Parts: sequence; C-alpha cells; structure tokens
Amino acid sequence: MKKRSSEDIVLEIKDKSELMVDLAYSSLIYNNKIIAKEVYDLEDLIDNLFQKIQKDTLEGVRNGKLSVDSALTLMRLAQAGEEIADAAQEIADVELRDVELHPILKQSVRESDEVLTKIQVKEKSILCGKTLGNLKLGSETGMMIIAIRHKDKWLYGPNKNTRIDEDDILFAKGPEDGEKHLIELAQGMSNDI
Amino acid sequence: MKKRSSEDIVLEIKDKSELMVDLAYSSLIYNNKIIAKEVYDLEDLIDNLFQKIQKDTLEGVRNGKLSVDSALTLMRLAQAGEEIADAAQEIADVELRDVELHPILKQSVRESDEVLTKIQVKEKSILCGKTLGNLKLGSETGMMIIAIRHKDKWLYGPNKNTRIDEDDILFAKGPEDGEKHLIELAQGMSNDI
Repeated sequence: MKKRSSEDIVLEIKDKSELMVDLAYSSLIYNNKIIAKEVYDLEDLIDNLFQKIQKDTLEGVRNGKLSVDSALTLMRLAQAGEEIADAAQEIADVELRDVELHPILKQSVRESDEVLTKIQVKEKSILCGKTLGNLKLGSETGMMIIAIRHKDKWLYGPNKNTRIDEDDILFAKGPEDGEKHLIELAQGMSNDI
Repeated sequence: MKKRSSEDIVLEIKDKSELMVDLAYSSLIYNNKIIAKEVYDLEDLIDNLFQKIQKDTLEGVRNGKLSVDSALTLMRLAQAGEEIADAAQEIADVELRDVELHPILKQSVRESDEVLTKIQVKEKSILCGKTLGNLKLGSETGMMIIAIRHKDKWLYGPNKNTRIDEDDILFAKGPEDGEKHLIELAQGMSNDI
C-alpha cells in the first residue's frame, strides 16, 4: 500500500473535523445519540491521524525531505483540526449527557447561518436510485449531505458514489431556501434538478 | 437597548467561530494577511461573548431563571465555539508567521470537500447592484459568500442586505461545480440565476 502523504492526512483531518462539528450540532437538534456516538468514533480516528502526522513530519525533517518550517505548518494545521474535533466532541457530549436542549436554543441552532435539516426520501422522489455524483445536490440546491441513514445502516460524510434510495433519511446543511428545494425533491413534489 | 438572550449569544458564537475557520483557511490559500488579521479581531469578539455568557448564565442560575442543566449546556456550547475560534486563530497564525504554504497542501485545502474560492465581479455581471437576499446564491449555486472586498473596505460574513457591486472581490465556499457557476455569473458569462 502506498504511503499517504502528510498533505493528504492534514486534509482528511480538516474535512473530518468540520464534518464532526456539523454532525455534533445535528445530534443535538434531532436528539440523536447514534450521530453523537459517531462523533466520538471520529474523534478516535482524528487522534490517530494527528499522531501519525507528528511522527511523519519528524521523520521527514530527520531524513531531510521536509524543512522545519513546512513540518511546523503541517503540525499546526493538524493540531487546529484536532482541536476542532475536540470541540465537536464536547458538543456531542451535551446530547449524550441526556440534557434536553431548550427549545428556543434548538430552533435557533437549526436556523443559524446554515440550516441543519433531516429529510426522508419518498418512493416517488427523483432522488431514488441516483448517486450524489449524479445529483450534484450541492450546486443544484445548496445543500450538502452530511449523513445518510439507509435502513439500519448509517453513512457519515457520503461521497460521489453514494446512492440515495427510497426511505433513506438525509441529514444535510445549507441555506434556508436550499432546504425547501431539497424537501420538495425528496418528497417527490418537484423534479426540478 | 434590549438585553440579548443567552441563546442569541451562543448562536452568534457558533456562526462567527465557523466563519472564522473558513476565513482562516482562505487567508492561507490566498496569502491574505488582511483576512488573517480579521480572524484575530473576531477572536477578541468571541472572547468577550464567551465571558458574557458565563456571567449571564451564572446570574440566571442565581435568580432562578435558568436551571443548572440549562446553564451548563449554554456554557458548554459557548466553550466549544470558543475552542473552534482558537483553532481558527492558529490556522490564521500560519499565514501571519509568513511561512509559505507548500503548493500541494495549498491546492488540496482549496479543493477539500468544500472549495474555497476568490472571484472578482465584472461590470457586465448580473450580480452587480443586487443584494445577497435578492440573489440567493446559496441555493442557486451552492456557494456561500464568507467575505467581500469592496474597494478598500472589507466585509466579513455578509448578510441579506449586502449589495454586490462591480469590481467587488467575493470570497466564497461551496461545492466544486458551484464554484464554476459562480465564476460564470461574476464574469458575466452566464445570467442563469
């Protein structure tokens, strides 16, 4: 197996830590302990990646492949991502501690700059049987899918090859009018995509 | 002046801290010290809001308006936001320390799950003279505007009333094909909105 570059790992820490923050707030808004626990699992993954970056950059400096400045930058970015992941875990912790979020706070978090939403896909929806790569929901509706529940299986941070099926539950974030568009598509009330 | 609720303040910490992360990465990718310094200024704001939340929740508990559980939740969410803001500052710090980011890393951060981009608005663009509220760029293109440079003035985290003018420089994030759409609109090569 080809060794992954430090840049790849820093990027994975960046993307995963930001996904964790979205998942953590979603777990709070929808009282969803399964998502909150996933944030915990992702935090373990981030810790491992962070340790790997530290080791790789030190080795890179020792064998002359990496300047001290480059190594510092990589470590610093990885550390910032790790701190964001920690913060996401603290948010998920609020859900796991079983404290009911005040309805006003829940509503306002749901409606912050980017709305977090949960939508079930109906049988007659145009989304059924299509992959995220086909659908381009991000540019068509402004909504980014952060997790999908397919029967009892959960998928976090889906990719282009992820297929949407009937009855799937989509967790997504994006602008308010994007939410409306995605709801209409998922309910089969619009095929405008 | 009406006293702001703790929920409002927690929400502002959430939104601002997430904006700071986007601004911090943008400052790195585009070697932009002005944006990096803005992240520092926002961190001061977040610190003040965080101190305010601590005081308000303690007073709320003392006068019986807030349960201990609710106060803990508010404090915890505010703290998580404060930690995300700290992490954003560390990212901006990489830019301010004048270390040139490795081109491969720069490119990969630019092209992570959500692309960060910088686009100048041409005279013939359909965007000119319109507000963000009119344009609904978020749902139309998937791109969220995180900052606008208007002549020598900077605007961070613009709102619905912000108007786009000729020659403005937009900093935005969103999916890859959303970037293409926004570039075409800004250059006047498409009026499809």
